Amino acid sequence: MGTGMARNLLRAGHEVTVFNRTREKAEALAAEGAVVAMSPAEACRGCDAALTMVSDDRAMEEMVVAESGVAAALAAGATHISHSTISTAMARRLAAEHAGRGQGYLSAPVFGRPDAAEAKRLIVVAAGEAATIERFRPVFDAIGRATFIAGAEPWQANAVKVCGNFMIAAMLEAFAEAYATLRKAGVDPHLFLEVMNALFASPVYANYGRIVADEQFEPAGFALKLGLKDARLVLETAFECAAPMPMASLIRDRLLAALAGGQAEMDWSSVARVAARDAGL
Amino acid sequence: MGTGMARNLLRAGHEVTVFNRTREKAEALAAEGAVVAMSPAEACRGCDAALTMVSDDRAMEEMVVAESGVAAALAAGATHISHSTISTAMARRLAAEHAGRGQGYLSAPVFGRPDAAEAKRLIVVAAGEAATIERFRPVFDAIGRATFIAGAEPWQANAVKVCGNFMIAAMLEAFAEAYATLRKAGVDPHLFLEVMNALFASPVYANYGRIVADEQFEPAGFALKLGLKDARLVLETAFECAAPMPMASLIRDRLLAALAGGQAEMDWSSVARVAARDAGL
Amino acid sequence: MGTGMARNLLRAGHEVTVFNRTREKAEALAAEGAVVAMSPAEACRGCDAALTMVSDDRAMEEMVVAESGVAAALAAGATHISHSTISTAMARRLAAEHAGRGQGYLSAPVFGRPDAAEAKRLIVVAAGEAATIERFRPVFDAIGRATFIAGAEPWQANAVKVCGNFMIAAMLEAFAEAYATLRKAGVDPHLFLEVMNALFASPVYANYGRIVADEQFEPAGFALKLGLKDARLVLETAFECAAPMPMASLIRDRLLAALAGGQAEMDWSSVARVAARDAGL
Amino acid sequence: MGTGMARNLLRAGHEVTVFNRTREKAEALAAEGAVVAMSPAEACRGCDAALTMVSDDRAMEEMVVAESGVAAALAAGATHISHSTISTAMARRLAAEHAGRGQGYLSAPVFGRPDAAEAKRLIVVAAGEAATIERFRPVFDAIGRATFIAGAEPWQANAVKVCGNFMIAAMLEAFAEAYATLRKAGVDPHLFLEVMNALFASPVYANYGRIVADEQFEPAGFALKLGLKDARLVLETAFECAAPMPMASLIRDRLLAALAGGQAEMDWSSVARVAARDAGL
Repeated sequence: MGTGMARNLLRAGHEVTVFNRTREKAEALAAEGAVVAMSPAEACRGCDAALTMVSDDRAMEEMVVAESGVAAALAAGATHISHSTISTAMARRLAAEHAGRGQGYLSAPVFGRPDAAEAKRLIVVAAGEAATIERFRPVFDAIGRATFIAGAEPWQANAVKVCGNFMIAAMLEAFAEAYATLRKAGVDPHLFLEVMNALFASPVYANYGRIVADEQFEPAGFALKLGLKDARLVLETAFECAAPMPMASLIRDRLLAALAGGQAEMDWSSVARVAARDAGL
Repeated sequence: MGTGMARNLLRAGHEVTVFNRTREKAEALAAEGAVVAMSPAEACRGCDAALTMVSDDRAMEEMVVAESGVAAALAAGATHISHSTISTAMARRLAAEHAGRGQGYLSAPVFGRPDAAEAKRLIVVAAGEAATIERFRPVFDAIGRATFIAGAEPWQANAVKVCGNFMIAAMLEAFAEAYATLRKAGVDPHLFLEVMNALFASPVYANYGRIVADEQFEPAGFALKLGLKDARLVLETAFECAAPMPMASLIRDRLLAALAGGQAEMDWSSVARVAARDAGL
Repeated sequence: MGTGMARNLLRAGHEVTVFNRTREKAEALAAEGAVVAMSPAEACRGCDAALTMVSDDRAMEEMVVAESGVAAALAAGATHISHSTISTAMARRLAAEHAGRGQGYLSAPVFGRPDAAEAKRLIVVAAGEAATIERFRPVFDAIGRATFIAGAEPWQANAVKVCGNFMIAAMLEAFAEAYATLRKAGVDPHLFLEVMNALFASPVYANYGRIVADEQFEPAGFALKLGLKDARLVLETAFECAAPMPMASLIRDRLLAALAGGQAEMDWSSVARVAARDAGL
Repeated sequence: MGTGMARNLLRAGHEVTVFNRTREKAEALAAEGAVVAMSPAEACRGCDAALTMVSDDRAMEEMVVAESGVAAALAAGATHISHSTISTAMARRLAAEHAGRGQGYLSAPVFGRPDAAEAKRLIVVAAGEAATIERFRPVFDAIGRATFIAGAEPWQANAVKVCGNFMIAAMLEAFAEAYATLRKAGVDPHLFLEVMNALFASPVYANYGRIVADEQFEPAGFALKLGLKDARLVLETAFECAAPMPMASLIRDRLLAALAGGQAEMDWSSVARVAARDAGL
């Protein structure tokens, strides 16, 4: 994800210093004008904003909160913009951490896969202080096709992000169950998909509906173990809000069954195998 | 529904005889060239095909199977085309009933609300003997924008229909849960809907997402009690196929809670009130 | 079941005429004083009460409602006492059928397996007109160890019965899930069962907890396909009452998954295999 | 809980030093021979074993892991015995913490309410090094009526404890759903409870079944917010083990709905109100 985002920032004329634990990924951007840093701290020196894109809370903690991390390296007055899908609890912790150092903090998670990042087709959901969002709007405009403001509290953007991923997961499980029943009824899932495409007319349905009908779960566009992480995140947010989400619970349990069945590295749409197995398929 | 369908058949040049228990509805079509019959049996006399659109299995039984119903009145060689959302079990029973009388039978349920029927925008899912489907393709072309063939057994079309309604219901419950959590997180559901519109780009999401965000559940586009009927139908079909659908079970239970709460006549998207209530909203 | 019940009626001094589709079962009772009838109608001649014990609604319909069945054969003023686990809808239908013929009707389903019937250890739940129940209390006393009165409407006893079976099924699924987690945690289910026996001190927990821990699902004490029938019955009753039972829905879906996996004839406690399979065991 | 446990240790002839944040609770034991300490560290001085009973992971962390907590104060060779219902993750953390200091660690959570602790009626589930368990068996014998050994890893006892609480919660939700349906069927829950008492013959069913039938949720024997904590603990353990527990997920969501409805301080059996509300009661 980060590569495509950095490239689009460069294309838009921003000065970009990049760091990645896999150094080759960072150096690939040098030819396009990026400065390559040897550590997160080095990448932060003298910048207006540090954009982070990591896989989970733990990685965020190591990169930002830990000693000689982003928070320690960033100048007072500079802003940390987190694009990762992290927990709302971690977003609140980051906000407090940066506020304590006189730094700004925005949550700006994105919807879209690596190819969408590359194509500047991301959807950005930003939250935090309004003035700070406006200040960095050119950044969001550079990396995505649309930016939405979720609220004045950074964690609200993370709440929107995990709820959005839940909406996709709900669609996946719905396809899984419908396909399982229809297969046993002798109806080709591809026929059902055509009907759903006529009905919903959504590229997300068309794309995931086809992957599940074809059972092409490898290589993974989005690993099932990360989908399970996200299912847990939305349930944690819902718990904080005291809002039961039984459909999210169901999805979590189905993803966990898929994980227990050895599908951690497959695409998360392979959760459909659980419904198929339950139907004796 | 029937009015729009009959009108489009007339527009396409078919000879149409109409019957409706509410006689005014039938007579409204007389000005457009329809013959008005006083009973289902009368409507069937001399026709090639009897198209039926009723609310449930019981109404179908009364109109078709009962004495002096459609089956008794239809000529041998004529065909009954059922557009209703009925159970797969009833579709099998109708197929057997008509076969025993030397009549044809097709299941051809449709997706779309009355305004879509009027605008010839229905999606038709047909199943039955291939030759019979081809013979009546002009009928399907006259009433809808697309026709899909689900299989050689009429009930397979009904299986597709109830699974399709389940897909919509799954989306409704997903919106309901996401909105409930986000409301408690201080995020406006309309903001979330904008993000989902950018993500899914589906008119179905846009339309239902707005109804639920606005909580405009009256007048009902599709009554909750009918949505509950459909949730039961998909579970019955899944049971016949020995395919568990836990998400469908969840939806059934939520719709039943809404019914118990007095929402039978509201739009089925008002199922969202259950998630809201569970969250203390 | 019927054999043990008939034997205890004979022991209590009642005159008993028996009918069973498997004639050997009926004749085994002749030596103990029972008269063997060749048909349900013959068994009903001149009796005060016809006791029926069949496997489901369909069998009840064939034996009682159909031509030359119990209802037609029973004298006006005589009473039909149904001990079967049938639907509340069927109980209402039987009540109406018998009322229309000037006959009495009681629902009196029982808890207990064949060995409990033999040992006069059944729990009887009766419902219907109070005077009729009192009149036949000696019958209930003869076959069971305790009789409870559920209400004045016969179907209320059936509601109690299906809810009671649901309570057992809930325990089975709870054991299934706890055992699956504990097995993966390296804890022996038998150890957990010992703790539960200390905690609940219930013979039902001890018995079923052991069957599931031992995974001794054959021969079946109560076939899974009948357990699934009962799960459907409680959901139907709950639907009639507009009372959502999500735990019953979950149990239904798990039993259906077990059925799809080929476990129809195993003991219903083998539903535990679904939780185990979901955990990758 | 701690008071009854300490009293029984004193009765059995053990030397006991007590600490409680509410000093009065500790001093009440002085008259019975306990030494009152002013801090956890002081209570640990010179002891063979430090027994802790706190409400959750956070309290455990503060009392044990934090500076000048139990771990720092305990002598090498001494043992920490944790009786609390804590997470399996925290149990592993404690085990590592104490091992690093040359101290022993046992998890020995208990089943039973304060009155059972007082009456020496607790069920103790212990896990850890076998020799250490044997060494402290007199402690377990002093406080409970039965001790079970879950395994060699301390956290295994915690897994058993949270699964045991899940079994009780499953029973509560089952009662809730059955009662809701039966109330709407016009059947008194107390009648159903009598039948269940005849069937299960369990004091746990008798006790909780009565509380729910009477709707006497205050004062709380066990607060709903703690029940929700435990539902989360069993789901965390199940997640660590990659074992889906959909019934536990359902229970969590119902408890969360009850919490959102303002029932945090009521008895956890008041979760039954959610099923009742869903049924329109």
